[in-house]
Amino acid sequence: MVIRDLADVDCAGAAFELAEAGRALSRRGWVSATSGNFSARISSDPLRLLVTRKGADKAALSDSDFLVVDRTGGLIAGDSCASAETAIHLAVIRATGARAILHTSSVHTTMLADRHTRAGGVAVTRGATLQALSGLTGCQRYEWIPALENSRDYLALSRAVENSLMRFRGCHGLLLRARGLYAWGADIAEACRHVEALEALAEILTKSRD
Amino acid sequence: MVIRDLADVDCAGAAFELAEAGRALSRRGWVSATSGNFSARISSDPLRLLVTRKGADKAALSDSDFLVVDRTGGLIAGDSCASAETAIHLAVIRATGARAILHTSSVHTTMLADRHTRAGGVAVTRGATLQALSGLTGCQRYEWIPALENSRDYLALSRAVENSLMRFRGCHGLLLRARGLYAWGADIAEACRHVEALEALAEILTKSRD
Amino acid sequence: MVIRDLADVDCAGAAFELAEAGRALSRRGWVSATSGNFSARISSDPLRLLVTRKGADKAALSDSDFLVVDRTGGLIAGDSCASAETAIHLAVIRATGARAILHTSSVHTTMLADRHTRAGGVAVTRGATLQALSGLTGCQRYEWIPALENSRDYLALSRAVENSLMRFRGCHGLLLRARGLYAWGADIAEACRHVEALEALAEILTKSRD
Amino acid sequence: MVIRDLADVDCAGAAFELAEAGRALSRRGWVSATSGNFSARISSDPLRLLVTRKGADKAALSDSDFLVVDRTGGLIAGDSCASAETAIHLAVIRATGARAILHTSSVHTTMLADRHTRAGGVAVTRGATLQALSGLTGCQRYEWIPALENSRDYLALSRAVENSLMRFRGCHGLLLRARGLYAWGADIAEACRHVEALEALAEILTKSRD
Repeated sequence: MVIRDLADVDCAGAAFELAEAGRALSRRGWVSATSGNFSARISSDPLRLLVTRKGADKAALSDSDFLVVDRTGGLIAGDSCASAETAIHLAVIRATGARAILHTSSVHTTMLADRHTRAGGVAVTRGATLQALSGLTGCQRYEWIPALENSRDYLALSRAVENSLMRFRGCHGLLLRARGLYAWGADIAEACRHVEALEALAEILTKSRD
Repeated sequence: MVIRDLADVDCAGAAFELAEAGRALSRRGWVSATSGNFSARISSDPLRLLVTRKGADKAALSDSDFLVVDRTGGLIAGDSCASAETAIHLAVIRATGARAILHTSSVHTTMLADRHTRAGGVAVTRGATLQALSGLTGCQRYEWIPALENSRDYLALSRAVENSLMRFRGCHGLLLRARGLYAWGADIAEACRHVEALEALAEILTKSRD
Repeated sequence: MVIRDLADVDCAGAAFELAEAGRALSRRGWVSATSGNFSARISSDPLRLLVTRKGADKAALSDSDFLVVDRTGGLIAGDSCASAETAIHLAVIRATGARAILHTSSVHTTMLADRHTRAGGVAVTRGATLQALSGLTGCQRYEWIPALENSRDYLALSRAVENSLMRFRGCHGLLLRARGLYAWGADIAEACRHVEALEALAEILTKSRD
Repeated sequence: MVIRDLADVDCAGAAFELAEAGRALSRRGWVSATSGNFSARISSDPLRLLVTRKGADKAALSDSDFLVVDRTGGLIAGDSCASAETAIHLAVIRATGARAILHTSSVHTTMLADRHTRAGGVAVTRGATLQALSGLTGCQRYEWIPALENSRDYLALSRAVENSLMRFRGCHGLLLRARGLYAWGADIAEACRHVEALEALAEILTKSRD
């Protein structure tokens, strides 16, 4: 039996926080034209993931813009169809144990993804916001941001994401060509901070190359 | 007899939505200095088009900033004169069947129009917001944005627009040199999403060429 | 006798409108760090000019941030000293008959002033917001924006401004090196529209040259 | 005895003003991802410095985001640990006598720091906001902005900052590689104005070099 009512699961807090993140990221212009999608783990065993529906306006997320899926992407609650991109969120969770994932589609991360997909990623060696990444305490360290080719084959794409993140452990974000940035964290606030940090680094990297 | 009172036609909802779109597009800096104009079809047979008056501040549209015209651009309701640019909106409707049209004059679409008028348009092959365009379900496809020379001869200009859109069916926006972008959709929300998507693509294209 | 109370002159409306303009221009980042200054003519014979005091935060102008001067810059009302830059506002009024003058110091107008002072100005031949300039009805025309060298000698500077504007009649703005843009209009709303139009053109011109 | 309650010291006004500055600087995108930190002197003898805790969201500073330290950085009041960066604030105070210090980590100051660390700083000779710097009354003067190499050794770093500011007396800001900008003033409002002025100059300098 599929429970279709979000009230049956404890996700009001997560939905509220994701809506708040949506307003903040929208003001920066990073989720234009209903692009991007967000998720937060509301249960680990069994896995229950709260995700935004396809096409939702991130500046004004309401309860009806969310749904809950299980570890296979199967619908547990909500009135909308789960987006095919949910598979990428689930791959990130499998590889990193993240509790929240935010996908943005900004001008600068799109440009950065485009430039570095062939090389498989880009090393960020400086930038003030590097220190905002969890686990990077010093300022001399660097961050590797994997950049993967896009695909309509979501099964293959989610495997490529998972493999990449298993290989480059400890990274905080991933670039997908023609999609933009995926960033994650131990909670929604941390994922949001990682988006802000990586967006700033992307802007510096693209502007510095001009 | 010309009905001059907007209350006589059912357009309160469309005016409200266009005002909301105006505030959103204004915050992004895309309709500076009273540039741009918006329209929404409020009746199809006979055609009745709600359009913004010339020179209205798009950040603060009120009822008196709107008027209603018929398929020839003749005034049906409202206290202002219909803008000469209304002819372009009507051409877009004839060619595409759009129900809402938003014209913006941003820095990046102006630059893009300037660069690609000679070539007749520009092909966008990537960019995360490409997926926000209705009918573009995959991510490998491309979008052709026609770019036309500007003219003070609105009759000739509107014919050129119509011809271009009849030839390039399925496109979601049009660049006019020294004017900027025209985008449209099946409703105001979709037109707004197309503006956001095409503005982001224009910013990527102009910045990538630097 | 000097009247020091602003309530004695009819300037509440103009102060309200200038404060509103200040909030709008501040949101765009064009009057950072208390830069810029605004004025509006509240009487023509004798000339009474409402001007912002030196160092006021343009995002939050209150009554105490304004003062009134006569045609020589002499203080008529208000608690602050008249800024030395008032001489430039008076020069613009003498040359153009403007009723409102807005000076902004944005990144792009500063860059544009720097690039074109040697040539004495810059011709703008395209850009969608060109149409927002009063008196420019067509789209094929061009706008000449004079660009003058800066000076601490305000008497000489204001004469240079007046001479330049007498020579290039019909222009809507002026660039001063290391200061930025002066724009004006028949009222505050028109001056504001001219600032927005010229700021957009400045951004296009500086970005196009990259 | 350590007083851990902020109410015991007179710092409500300073905390309120710093929170206001945080909202303003955050809107400009200069303190992304919890980067940056702020401080204000609330007592001079003995020195008591109100500082933001590490990792606080500058867009929404509340009382619990502040703590008070003495001249050695020792905790006087507040529930959080003092950030290691407090040493840099104390160095700025020793060298300049500043009463408020704001550290931002914007895209443009990060780029500027990166470019000029090798040369030890950058001379700004023009830019409209140069006039907003206290003590720079004319427009022909220039501002030297020291740029120092970053270090995890905060003791060495704070000495380098103090030495640099003792050598270049009268400067209003300092660039630290991979950190961004430190600016200060005789009060919070002046420090805020200096940040805005130096951020604008940084944007002009980085864009002009493209």
